[in-house]
Amino acid sequence: MLTGQNFIAGASRASDSTFRAVDAASGQTFEPDFYEATRADVADACEAAAAAQGSYGALPAAKRAVFLRTAAAKIDALGDQLTQRAMRESGLPEARLNGERGRTVGQLRMFADYLEAGHWQRARVDHADRERTPPKPDLRLRMVPLGPVAVFGASNFPLAFSVAGGDTASALAAGCCVVVKGHPAHPGTSELVATAISEAVAECGLPGGVFSLLNGSGNALGEALVKDPRIAAVGFTGSRGGGLALMEYAAARSVPIPVFAEMSSVNPVILLPGRLAEAADTLGTAYAGSLSLGAGQFCTNPGIVLGVKGAALDRFRTSAIEALAEVAAQTMLTPAIRKAFESGVGALAADAAATACGKGKGDGEAGAQAQIYTVSGDDFFANPALADEIFGPVSILVQCNDINEIHAILKRMEGQLTATLHMSQTDHDIAKALLPTLEGLAGRVIANGWPTGVDVTHAMVHGGPFPATSDPRSTSVGTMAIERFLRPVSYQDMPQELLPAELQDDAGGVVRLVDGGLQK
Amino acid sequence: MLTGQNFIAGASRASDSTFRAVDAASGQTFEPDFYEATRADVADACEAAAAAQGSYGALPAAKRAVFLRTAAAKIDALGDQLTQRAMRESGLPEARLNGERGRTVGQLRMFADYLEAGHWQRARVDHADRERTPPKPDLRLRMVPLGPVAVFGASNFPLAFSVAGGDTASALAAGCCVVVKGHPAHPGTSELVATAISEAVAECGLPGGVFSLLNGSGNALGEALVKDPRIAAVGFTGSRGGGLALMEYAAARSVPIPVFAEMSSVNPVILLPGRLAEAADTLGTAYAGSLSLGAGQFCTNPGIVLGVKGAALDRFRTSAIEALAEVAAQTMLTPAIRKAFESGVGALAADAAATACGKGKGDGEAGAQAQIYTVSGDDFFANPALADEIFGPVSILVQCNDINEIHAILKRMEGQLTATLHMSQTDHDIAKALLPTLEGLAGRVIANGWPTGVDVTHAMVHGGPFPATSDPRSTSVGTMAIERFLRPVSYQDMPQELLPAELQDDAGGVVRLVDGGLQK
Repeated sequence: MLTGQNFIAGASRASDSTFRAVDAASGQTFEPDFYEATRADVADACEAAAAAQGSYGALPAAKRAVFLRTAAAKIDALGDQLTQRAMRESGLPEARLNGERGRTVGQLRMFADYLEAGHWQRARVDHADRERTPPKPDLRLRMVPLGPVAVFGASNFPLAFSVAGGDTASALAAGCCVVVKGHPAHPGTSELVATAISEAVAECGLPGGVFSLLNGSGNALGEALVKDPRIAAVGFTGSRGGGLALMEYAAARSVPIPVFAEMSSVNPVILLPGRLAEAADTLGTAYAGSLSLGAGQFCTNPGIVLGVKGAALDRFRTSAIEALAEVAAQTMLTPAIRKAFESGVGALAADAAATACGKGKGDGEAGAQAQIYTVSGDDFFANPALADEIFGPVSILVQCNDINEIHAILKRMEGQLTATLHMSQTDHDIAKALLPTLEGLAGRVIANGWPTGVDVTHAMVHGGPFPATSDPRSTSVGTMAIERFLRPVSYQDMPQELLPAELQDDAGGVVRLVDGGLQK
Repeated sequence: MLTGQNFIAGASRASDSTFRAVDAASGQTFEPDFYEATRADVADACEAAAAAQGSYGALPAAKRAVFLRTAAAKIDALGDQLTQRAMRESGLPEARLNGERGRTVGQLRMFADYLEAGHWQRARVDHADRERTPPKPDLRLRMVPLGPVAVFGASNFPLAFSVAGGDTASALAAGCCVVVKGHPAHPGTSELVATAISEAVAECGLPGGVFSLLNGSGNALGEALVKDPRIAAVGFTGSRGGGLALMEYAAARSVPIPVFAEMSSVNPVILLPGRLAEAADTLGTAYAGSLSLGAGQFCTNPGIVLGVKGAALDRFRTSAIEALAEVAAQTMLTPAIRKAFESGVGALAADAAATACGKGKGDGEAGAQAQIYTVSGDDFFANPALADEIFGPVSILVQCNDINEIHAILKRMEGQLTATLHMSQTDHDIAKALLPTLEGLAGRVIANGWPTGVDVTHAMVHGGPFPATSDPRSTSVGTMAIERFLRPVSYQDMPQELLPAELQDDAGGVVRLVDGGLQK
């Protein structure tokens, strides 16, 4: 069924060099062979994207919406075959992957709806005033696509943040052609999804260059893709090292381009005293669940929990330890991720400031063992490296002297995707004092929940100050993600018949800012 | 009256080293001495900005609007003193500078109005659905300020794009504290404006760190400012070399920050055959006026004009030459700019492909002499360096074989601030074919006008693909400029009393996207 070939503008292509997927559970490679994309493949995919960009970018939004819905239906139709392949490649469980497929097609359909709603285009009309000195021109603004986008598939969401994931969906919605660099950890999953998108491209009569998928097991492919002069922007979810490398390539181009990299976050969770006193046990159990969910392989894993020392925090810790003891060892996405996890935990264990305080089941071959460490607030403040992300099911409970120490720690923390407050009504004054710091720190501030679980909606921000992302002004999840791939163009005194439809005088039903006032 | 001191968070400060302004017309320095800001001054200004950021960023928009209007009134009140100083420092004429003051205070007031309209905050509310599997949280989004912004005063707009110019106005509107690096070509003008802003800061009871002005005659000051860890973004208008240097500093920081640099543009103007045939004479006269306006010292100067060879283009050229012959030599902003202009024109004159075809009055000491060169379409296409910007009153008329050649030239051109079509009704089919290329090329597409003159309004885009700017997704003029300095934050399941007012259930009169539908 799988061919292992690259998808270049609708055509399949092999090469001289191959790699294989690794069964996440066994660590053994399995068939088929996947062909490494060559430099020529990169150039051809980018050239096809550039050639298709004009017509795809000019496609009416309603037609792009049809295309996104067609792609969603085709991905849905991949059914169990997709799930089974993704399970073996990623080690993720069936229910999770079925849910992730739902999320993937859901976000394609969400962008289709969003395109039809029209306000994404941010149309603005300023009427002329020829009597003014100097005469005021007629000015009309709308958003247009940036150009071909390079998308890097993420290992930890083989569907929802990979070939047809959030970056691809928002770029295609914006009218940008997409060249995906598939993640080598799930090449078969990638090929199946690419087949679905390619079929949708063909069925909708779009040029093949709208979508390409390139396979590669090393870093050279990604570097060539980001450096290709036809690429106009980059979407990436992955490690800090990987994101920083892409940012460097992009900045060094003769025409620098924006990189939207979602990289690194430890997602501080703050337990405020009132809430801790009333619900220490429940919170502790939930903590163990959140940090070990999906083997901790979420960008929003709660890597750092902060509370004030005392009986309630002791109860929280005890409860978390008890719950964690029941958590089974879990297969991680790849041997490399498992190795990095073991190495990160090893360094933490060797740190004199950190004390191992709770572990999940199993060890060694069985999979990653979930772990909790404790650190004093003083030690944590003195050693900011303790706040570096360790990707996997591990978290540090920081036992602080008082709220002031928590606040001081938060103030010196690096940028985060999320920051969470657990609080009761009695904690609101403390929360009010902390909130400005948390808003400055993170893209999403959560009350009384856990950061894992990122809803795909209009008001979601999955982004945040560096190093959570490369650009704090963006989100990679939710409808606002489309804005990463759009730029404004203004038309001055343009005759009606040459204006885009949504800027003409008789544009119906489009939300526009007209002479400064919002009109439907 | 002028002290020459730096303004650091409301306090004046001298240093051991000084420089003087240069009288643009005479080339002679004149009093007083201005103190070079030290490294300590940079650090102190940034520290004060960081310290003030929390309270200024949290100020209700209505109060920020009052502050912007107060600053506008104080700048207005500087009156003739400001104009006289700016005339001497910049060589620009009185009427232009009075107009520029109007534009400066106008854009401060425009941002005040825009803040009050509220939709700048882009409020979004997605209500919870606790019955969904998994439960859907309540999510609410708004924009918050990025943090302290470094603004570089531009030499060519000593008021409208300098100390209180578009970058400063939009950053202050966004809730960002501002540290300005004053342009050394107009330090006295800068001090006067800084006095006005500082008075407004004090009168509105704001912390001094909201605004600082640092003087410096070299590049070290700007480098230190961009590298200061407390700076969150940079606004710059100036040369390509200068902008690229700032981009490099910003990308190399341990926490990279966005740079919004407006750098380089030759603003192609295309004369379509129908319009050229009916109005060659008028167009030629207008061309001479536009290219020599303000000694050509506009980012939107029409540096390249493209037309199809023939009798009509000959008439256009003749008319332009005749009109240009009447244009007086003009004082340029600085001796360095004059020197760069002479050098650029010298290189052009030495290029075998370019033919000098028209000149304005005067030469040598009297000021810059306006000039037009012609180049064949073939030569222009073969030598892309002919499209490099020469800042000043010079323009190249590219005489092409046909429309296809014009289109081919446009397709390989670098990013531009503007692209202009002169056309009649009979040219609309050609225009339709060119428009997608022009949209991809520039931030503003103009019909039947000249690119000089940038209206400050809602639908203006003064931006465009690199190297016109460092970030094509931005504009530095108009209300959308505020978005450069804002980032989204999402609040999940936050109790009503802890939500920002505009996100609470009973927020009155704020435009919001509620569950995907726009509501007032």
